[in-house]
Amino acid sequence: MSNKTQAGNFFEDFQLGQVIPHAIPRTLTAGDVALYTALTGSRFTLHCASPFAHRLGFPDTPVDDLLAFHIAFGKTVPDISLNAVANLGYADVRFVQPVYVGDTISAASEVIGLKQNSNGKSGVVYVRSNAFNQHNELVLTWIRWVMVHKQNTEAPAPETVIPELPGFVAASDLPIPKDLNAQGFDTEFSGSPHTWDDYEIGERIDHVDGLSVDDSDHTLATKLYQNSAKVHFNQHQMAQSRFGQRLMYGGHVISVVRALSHNGLANAFKIAAINGGSHSNPSFAGDSFYAYTEVLDKWALPGRQDIGALRLRSIGVKNLDSTEIPDPKVEVDGKPRYRDEVVLDLDYTVLMPRE
Amino acid sequence: MSNKTQAGNFFEDFQLGQVIPHAIPRTLTAGDVALYTALTGSRFTLHCASPFAHRLGFPDTPVDDLLAFHIAFGKTVPDISLNAVANLGYADVRFVQPVYVGDTISAASEVIGLKQNSNGKSGVVYVRSNAFNQHNELVLTWIRWVMVHKQNTEAPAPETVIPELPGFVAASDLPIPKDLNAQGFDTEFSGSPHTWDDYEIGERIDHVDGLSVDDSDHTLATKLYQNSAKVHFNQHQMAQSRFGQRLMYGGHVISVVRALSHNGLANAFKIAAINGGSHSNPSFAGDSFYAYTEVLDKWALPGRQDIGALRLRSIGVKNLDSTEIPDPKVEVDGKPRYRDEVVLDLDYTVLMPRE
Amino acid sequence: MSNKTQAGNFFEDFQLGQVIPHAIPRTLTAGDVALYTALTGSRFTLHCASPFAHRLGFPDTPVDDLLAFHIAFGKTVPDISLNAVANLGYADVRFVQPVYVGDTISAASEVIGLKQNSNGKSGVVYVRSNAFNQHNELVLTWIRWVMVHKQNTEAPAPETVIPELPGFVAASDLPIPKDLNAQGFDTEFSGSPHTWDDYEIGERIDHVDGLSVDDSDHTLATKLYQNSAKVHFNQHQMAQSRFGQRLMYGGHVISVVRALSHNGLANAFKIAAINGGSHSNPSFAGDSFYAYTEVLDKWALPGRQDIGALRLRSIGVKNLDSTEIPDPKVEVDGKPRYRDEVVLDLDYTVLMPRE
Repeated sequence: MSNKTQAGNFFEDFQLGQVIPHAIPRTLTAGDVALYTALTGSRFTLHCASPFAHRLGFPDTPVDDLLAFHIAFGKTVPDISLNAVANLGYADVRFVQPVYVGDTISAASEVIGLKQNSNGKSGVVYVRSNAFNQHNELVLTWIRWVMVHKQNTEAPAPETVIPELPGFVAASDLPIPKDLNAQGFDTEFSGSPHTWDDYEIGERIDHVDGLSVDDSDHTLATKLYQNSAKVHFNQHQMAQSRFGQRLMYGGHVISVVRALSHNGLANAFKIAAINGGSHSNPSFAGDSFYAYTEVLDKWALPGRQDIGALRLRSIGVKNLDSTEIPDPKVEVDGKPRYRDEVVLDLDYTVLMPRE
Repeated sequence: MSNKTQAGNFFEDFQLGQVIPHAIPRTLTAGDVALYTALTGSRFTLHCASPFAHRLGFPDTPVDDLLAFHIAFGKTVPDISLNAVANLGYADVRFVQPVYVGDTISAASEVIGLKQNSNGKSGVVYVRSNAFNQHNELVLTWIRWVMVHKQNTEAPAPETVIPELPGFVAASDLPIPKDLNAQGFDTEFSGSPHTWDDYEIGERIDHVDGLSVDDSDHTLATKLYQNSAKVHFNQHQMAQSRFGQRLMYGGHVISVVRALSHNGLANAFKIAAINGGSHSNPSFAGDSFYAYTEVLDKWALPGRQDIGALRLRSIGVKNLDSTEIPDPKVEVDGKPRYRDEVVLDLDYTVLMPRE
Repeated sequence: MSNKTQAGNFFEDFQLGQVIPHAIPRTLTAGDVALYTALTGSRFTLHCASPFAHRLGFPDTPVDDLLAFHIAFGKTVPDISLNAVANLGYADVRFVQPVYVGDTISAASEVIGLKQNSNGKSGVVYVRSNAFNQHNELVLTWIRWVMVHKQNTEAPAPETVIPELPGFVAASDLPIPKDLNAQGFDTEFSGSPHTWDDYEIGERIDHVDGLSVDDSDHTLATKLYQNSAKVHFNQHQMAQSRFGQRLMYGGHVISVVRALSHNGLANAFKIAAINGGSHSNPSFAGDSFYAYTEVLDKWALPGRQDIGALRLRSIGVKNLDSTEIPDPKVEVDGKPRYRDEVVLDLDYTVLMPRE
């Protein structure tokens, strides 16, 4: 193979404390925003109506939190997960600052943990990734860990370091957009009268609607994010895999579930954090997605009368109405296991206006 | 079901004179415009070349009339037609003012007619819908009527009121864009030398070209319009329907027919009104569309030397060259019925430059 | 057929020296750029990060060279190739000036050669096409030749004139963007450390990645370019053709190959010229593309320390890893013929920063 191409990093290439700057910064445009709407059907008013955004104190219409995340995440793929066997998890994802059309996003990752597998053929890499805007301000930060192949199985195992992972982002650590004032939040425009005060811990919301995703939908999304993970694009190669077809980018499933959640959570106008997430089963072109959400916790926020936070658990389901899923897991041989129809188990925290 | 989700209105929820403001205003962007071009292949120069628009007196490039319509229409779906059995018709659709990139569109509907069906299980709701820009100026207005399920069949029938529906928008009522001056209309740029003066009442134009629409095309379009009607999106659910698959949004068919009509009507630069329309048969992914147009009428416009109006009837046909359709209807059991290949019968009025 | 529709030109309609202005100028937008990224997955930093563009001296982010080319090329189709039997070749394609969002592109073609085929039923038309921005500055120029049907086989054959076609654009004729200064080129952002100095004549780069293209991908692209060639759009008609299905626009294949070439040629930031190209086999929805590139030549550029030029030959391959293609041609009956999997043989020249 030419020495000019990128083979990606293998497990033995990562070193604790190593900082990896990622290439290909990206200026977000109105085109990205329109495509995101077309690809997901998302209807959160903050991201599609500039007067609504201005009224809440935003200088401009912020782009969807997940659009910014997917683009920042895509930057990390060539360096972190090109040779990944599996994306194992996310933690401490914080949406530090809104991202606007015209902002240029770049990203860098630090290796914060390493653990070689006992088989000596692969290992788990933990990274803290940070995304910045053109003013070098942090806009997004997250931890993820992936299982990565070794290329040279003779390479010595690194010292095992497993970073401490917060179970969730504490209420006091939730990023609140500067100048946000939700007193002007108009529920007539957002599509639901239900504010933070109306939700109860333990409440379950089945989001009613279903959405099918075809070939071009998910591949257009993933190419828009310039995410170069081969499993999403190359049908010729994936036909040989155990899946027999291209895998849908898990981030697109998160976006679809978030879009579906509008029906029942229309006022969850801003994602503040993702506490953890599991892509419990793969998704493919042709799948129809449903979702339900449980309210895990609700927090008033210090010094704020205008907004509160809800910690939510959204379950994404494929090819089955979510109301037929009482629990995402079933017991198999005495152990809880995700049902085959469950494709996403996402723990995240949203901001919502108060009465 | 959670009381937080939207079930949509049922027939008994509508009251005569009721005004329903619709949620989720939408700021149009250059991204929407580009997607509309990619989804339809439309080539009307006014909407894709800013110098051409300026030369006609427009302050900026107006977005395609149908793009604005679909977005405004999409706003009304959650309140008006989520539980619709059928979209029965449109009337008096007027494109009151051009819509520009940067404009934010919101919509509201008034119930102007109600008629319960004799079976007591559903009824017809007539609404006048209005769309406004961020200056609260009316940009679009239309009447449509839909058949909607009753949820509570015990609910009493309302008084039957059927509004008067104009057969067409009279020449004197056609909206003409402020500052429009078509004297600078350059037919070299528009793609056809044929102006208003060249068309004759009764003339038929077969638009030659065909266009196939795939899954992602029509679902991307409908999601872009944030139209939440379930029949267009949810393959899992629609597999159980009598269609066995997702229905294409009828508005997308209108857009495709309009785009095809460029070959023969390239100078019909502006839709002024839609007089009526019938989605005579459903369309599905994989269908190839053809179209032909008859000139129903032509009107000089008072005080204008630069433009005239043509009242047109465009017939959309699927999977058959339009030249093989002498008439959109055939007689079945002594009654005229649309041929199976005819998917659209659209009566509308366009503006065209004069010699 | 109505006299209002465009049937396109037939061989006998072309005259040597004839200048044909093309209709439907097009203003490029941020929406076009985002769609191009989503449709191709292209990652060349110059086109997606405005600070990167500014640092190289560009006043704004130039749109991808091929996006500009496809849009300009699309303008010529209704007049030049609507009745084409085959696109025979390109020569002397020069990317004279960068194109920016907001620019309006128009095009005109001059007939520079004619040769009737010996069967009397068709002939070859050579045109020089030029594309201009709104300031009437030349931005793109190219020669192509197409075989076009005669409608009236009785029409007399024109005098045969075959224009001189340069084998490649000489180094001294390569357009260099005004104000370009690649001294600020940051290879950390571009995704590769390899600059012009690192490449050697004869070097081969297999671009590793594969990309599948589905129905909606290629038809959305071609509609975005407002390319009206029927073979790409009309499944109903193409089902009757020898292909049995729609043909992918060859330009989209060029774009896919260019996007794939990022892995190995990330610093080939600008296409200066296309010297020639052959769509050696048709491509269809569902095909997966791979590519490899040979360095044909490398030129220092007079008076420039910051950039050099590479003349490249990129081979696009479908449904086979490019490493399995030692040579794009095989000998059949003693003659070299393209292998069935080879879909593109493109000879072009790029600019690359020097050390």
